Amino acid sequence: MSGRTARRRVVRIDGGSQSERPDLLAAEEPLGIRVGGEAVSLTMRTPGDDLDLAAGFLVGEGIVGSVADITSITICDGVRCGHAGHEEVGNIADVELRPGLAAVPRRNFLTTSACGVCGKASIADLCVHTRWDIGADGLRVPAAALAAMADSLRAAQRVFARTGGLHAAAAFSPDGGLLAVREDVGRHNAVDKLVGWALREGRLPMRGCVLLVSGRASFELVQKAMLAGFPVLAAVSAPSSLAADLAAEAGLTLVGFLRGRSMNVYSRPERVLVTPRLSRSAPGGA
Amino acid sequence: MSGRTARRRVVRIDGGSQSERPDLLAAEEPLGIRVGGEAVSLTMRTPGDDLDLAAGFLVGEGIVGSVADITSITICDGVRCGHAGHEEVGNIADVELRPGLAAVPRRNFLTTSACGVCGKASIADLCVHTRWDIGADGLRVPAAALAAMADSLRAAQRVFARTGGLHAAAAFSPDGGLLAVREDVGRHNAVDKLVGWALREGRLPMRGCVLLVSGRASFELVQKAMLAGFPVLAAVSAPSSLAADLAAEAGLTLVGFLRGRSMNVYSRPERVLVTPRLSRSAPGGA
Repeated sequence: MSGRTARRRVVRIDGGSQSERPDLLAAEEPLGIRVGGEAVSLTMRTPGDDLDLAAGFLVGEGIVGSVADITSITICDGVRCGHAGHEEVGNIADVELRPGLAAVPRRNFLTTSACGVCGKASIADLCVHTRWDIGADGLRVPAAALAAMADSLRAAQRVFARTGGLHAAAAFSPDGGLLAVREDVGRHNAVDKLVGWALREGRLPMRGCVLLVSGRASFELVQKAMLAGFPVLAAVSAPSSLAADLAAEAGLTLVGFLRGRSMNVYSRPERVLVTPRLSRSAPGGA
Repeated sequence: MSGRTARRRVVRIDGGSQSERPDLLAAEEPLGIRVGGEAVSLTMRTPGDDLDLAAGFLVGEGIVGSVADITSITICDGVRCGHAGHEEVGNIADVELRPGLAAVPRRNFLTTSACGVCGKASIADLCVHTRWDIGADGLRVPAAALAAMADSLRAAQRVFARTGGLHAAAAFSPDGGLLAVREDVGRHNAVDKLVGWALREGRLPMRGCVLLVSGRASFELVQKAMLAGFPVLAAVSAPSSLAADLAAEAGLTLVGFLRGRSMNVYSRPERVLVTPRLSRSAPGGA
């Protein structure tokens, strides 16, 4: 089995000095995903949690929504077919769906709802339909709890600390407890792995839970959060305009720039509770 | 025409205080790319430099290698077909190739060289073939010049500074001059835009030049650098293991963690020149 990190020789330059030494890098290898024997995806990912990655990818494409939708996932370790050497990279995840379920490719706005000349589409047209009512989720989470979640994520990001090269995604329960964290060189993969974990644990939809990502929030990540049923997506860095627009339309709370005790809330801010500070300079204050 | 930034209302929370205000976000919209009327790609990108993005994408897929390979690229502005409203997003780039050139899909390791059971492939099997001899490029660049390039890139990243949400890619001439810089919400898109600029300017291959990216270096980015003929790829953040392996195999110099005057060189380090400091504590030293 491939590791999540890989050691490589590196020439370290620091001002006028240079030295050769080993360096630890985030491992990256291809994973092919096949459904019923048909290739549906090839992604460059960090090895590990491959069952979760395959399952989560299919949730993100709107193909599966519960653990019962998947009959089996198998990943060849390269031993049976004699490819266990160190010169080769990559793996394949073979997924079988329950009878009657097809791996329908995701909606392609180029060939469906968008204008065929200019490509303009409404935001709704761009989306894979989610089966969960995100907007109705009654979660309320204190801003201080979101800040604490970011601290928990940093503490849990073990590989990132060693290689500087991984994105992380984590799920938190309504009381702020860390449910699971997944890492990958690709931020979409990190979320797919987390969602795949949730599916395989029978936890979808993730009602009342928070999805926290270590980087930026794109349209794709908001979409993945919606398809997993999270009411809140919080990102340590910036969101894009389309991420904010889609979150608003779906009734998902999008938090960005979650740093220390500060953050921006781009949609459905009533889910984030702020406890006003007592002013220290107030007359008669302690 | 869509802008590169978009204004959205945001609730800013800082400790116990909250306020509503406008916030500037990096714009994200879909761009469909069609070749000869056939859809070949749909990418979420920051509007702007769309001709470059379409051209560079085709370079990265190994479909075109010079400006003569492309007969025309047109992008509908949504006016002719009556979709210029603010409710819709997205555009389509229509590319026509010179007669005899086909938009052959990129090599798919799942269906070609890799083991059909486990997916193992050699690194060479994973690649789109490049037409340039990267390894033979005689560029030598001082480490101090690389550090100065990182400073130039930061200074040139205007949209990033305002939104915190964009990746950048820049090309530098052998003497350290900034040739072009492109920004995008997606780091692959930023490189595609830069490479498309180079193709449209008739500059491919980018012999003797440095490609600098604001984030991490993945396998895909090394591949894009190779297909554009850059002998050096420098990244401000970490590379992945496969990025380092592919760079070594291709004879490309891969620099990571380019920060201040320090950096790591993962392959072909002889292209990076270090001027030893005179030790201040040397006997008789000034």
